[in-house]
Amino acid sequence: MNFNPEISFGTRIRKSPFFESTMKWGCKGFTIYNKMYMPTYYKSYVDDYWSLVNDVTLWDVAGERQVEIIGKDAEKFVEYITPRDISKCKVGQCMYIHLTEKNGGIVNDPVLLKLAENHFWLSIADSDVLLWCLGIASSNKFNINLCEPEVSPLSLQGPKATDVMVKVSGDWVKNLKFFYFKEGLIQNIPVIIARSGWSGMSGYEIYLRDGTKGNILWKIFMDSGQEFKIAPAAPSQINRIECGMLSYGSDITLNENPFDISMDKFVDLDKEAEFLSRDSLTLIKKQGNNKELVGVEIMKKTSDEFIGDHLPVYDNNKIVGKITSSVYSPRLKKNIGLALLDRNRDLNSINLYLVYNDRSIEIKISKLPFLRNK
Amino acid sequence: MNFNPEISFGTRIRKSPFFESTMKWGCKGFTIYNKMYMPTYYKSYVDDYWSLVNDVTLWDVAGERQVEIIGKDAEKFVEYITPRDISKCKVGQCMYIHLTEKNGGIVNDPVLLKLAENHFWLSIADSDVLLWCLGIASSNKFNINLCEPEVSPLSLQGPKATDVMVKVSGDWVKNLKFFYFKEGLIQNIPVIIARSGWSGMSGYEIYLRDGTKGNILWKIFMDSGQEFKIAPAAPSQINRIECGMLSYGSDITLNENPFDISMDKFVDLDKEAEFLSRDSLTLIKKQGNNKELVGVEIMKKTSDEFIGDHLPVYDNNKIVGKITSSVYSPRLKKNIGLALLDRNRDLNSINLYLVYNDRSIEIKISKLPFLRNK
Repeated sequence: MNFNPEISFGTRIRKSPFFESTMKWGCKGFTIYNKMYMPTYYKSYVDDYWSLVNDVTLWDVAGERQVEIIGKDAEKFVEYITPRDISKCKVGQCMYIHLTEKNGGIVNDPVLLKLAENHFWLSIADSDVLLWCLGIASSNKFNINLCEPEVSPLSLQGPKATDVMVKVSGDWVKNLKFFYFKEGLIQNIPVIIARSGWSGMSGYEIYLRDGTKGNILWKIFMDSGQEFKIAPAAPSQINRIECGMLSYGSDITLNENPFDISMDKFVDLDKEAEFLSRDSLTLIKKQGNNKELVGVEIMKKTSDEFIGDHLPVYDNNKIVGKITSSVYSPRLKKNIGLALLDRNRDLNSINLYLVYNDRSIEIKISKLPFLRNK
Repeated sequence: MNFNPEISFGTRIRKSPFFESTMKWGCKGFTIYNKMYMPTYYKSYVDDYWSLVNDVTLWDVAGERQVEIIGKDAEKFVEYITPRDISKCKVGQCMYIHLTEKNGGIVNDPVLLKLAENHFWLSIADSDVLLWCLGIASSNKFNINLCEPEVSPLSLQGPKATDVMVKVSGDWVKNLKFFYFKEGLIQNIPVIIARSGWSGMSGYEIYLRDGTKGNILWKIFMDSGQEFKIAPAAPSQINRIECGMLSYGSDITLNENPFDISMDKFVDLDKEAEFLSRDSLTLIKKQGNNKELVGVEIMKKTSDEFIGDHLPVYDNNKIVGKITSSVYSPRLKKNIGLALLDRNRDLNSINLYLVYNDRSIEIKISKLPFLRNK
């Protein structure tokens, strides 16, 4: 039985190359990601989560579109839009980066793939990175071409992911290092296979380069994965909050800079290349940023109550931040979440709470991650 | 009964200030628009349509976010991003404009509101205009501030819209000209009331300027509209296709320029102000554009079959374009749609068809609009 309204399908939003398969496999919920329908769950959020944690799952994440940067100034351009030093990125390597606006605000947190010298993809979270890049490039300072290529990732995640990947692609996969990728073919379908994913455990992202072959590729993985109890699933909110992984749109927006979300290690203020946010991030670093991202434990008994909004966090009747994501953790058997708090709050006070349905609920700050997958 | 999967609610996508009311009023379908949940229908698409055509309807279109441009160079900046001459736009006036990329591709087709000298809003369709503008503005050429203000439009549309609007706001509304607006209060709630909307008939857009008052404002309209049979509804795909109105994402993308969609009248190649797409649009105008947007009649008998994809249009086994939107029209009692066709196709051929479920279905080019509302 559905408790939520349905998602409306139409031509305004794109269907992924795997759409037909996801419907056939019983996808029950969708969201929209970069103007593409993206599955959210099949059996139930909790059942899908256990398949991820115990076995292996296949996700249609075609909504993680690619922005391709190619041309003489491609590396210069990528350096310009991120505070991370990408000069040491090798061909065949991935790097997690933040794209930052002039004032330091985060535009997106993609995975960068270096396909060749001066040929990159940004595998993006949900915001129009292409438009932002086109805006910047319109100044004529860069000799590059920008486009969204016809590329759609599948994600294979879970402790048995390598078993499935080896069966599909061969033993070489075992030697693929974390955050490296290789171009190749799966039964003549052109793909890029990266050892990466949003699960904090073993996993691969398979970038499909021929949009007409989505359903064939899906079937190859489902067939090969059967003996490993593969299940269709989607990025797991439960697992990613347990692992303290952030979601752009929920925990990060244009209003946060990398320091606000404790991502200092991806900021190289002294890197050689010119970058758009250097002045503002340098100033923020010097003066101190205003927010901090923390893990929180929400001290309420019921496990079936989902807190779906950015609820304010209070300290003594004063708003000192907000919950950005929360979920019930079946492994920890408690309600956990992420919160953005004001760094200028009374740090001695430990009486934080939120208000839900007129009830005051205590919250406790927790160390991140809440747990580590093996 | 639901045939579609549900929409997943979470913190990644925003809820509008009217969200609670739309759920209370029985919204059955949602889409996502500018990262905000947006209702698509209540009773049924067809029932909602008849309420719009015969009476009056209230739409939560808070997803049509505003991009605010303010500062010394605000007008110069707006001129820069559109090929339309906006120099004659008066304070209190709206203008439909296209935002065009350097190569002439359409980034968005917002309504421009001039709030004061060098103070504008772009009331946008579904793409990250703010990011694009920030990218352009990062070049330092413009002394402006850009932001997304806390503003959420409601749309009141239908032949009895003026009756409701007068009851809510007073007789002055009768003198508000089409595409003009006025700032004011509705029971102390700050709003801007514009005579505009996406229905091709009498209508108003009420821009709520205090996000905490959404449900109160919704109730004011619903209560006042009761005697006029007001119904909650959403932008009607049926009506807008009948009226030949285009939807960004469906019929227009970054791959189309204004000439491709017959919007020549909004392009002033010789306008005085500098603009980003002048060179490319001038060249396209000279050399001729490659596409044309046409109305099509889809010659099939069944009324219950919705064509939800960008199906290719064929001429003698050759693809010559695609359907961009289609719907069954209860007033015309036929299947109609919009299509983007190759202008270099054999124009003498009238044997166009599409293929759906292995059936070949004839299509005929029709004059737009298919009908005009009174």
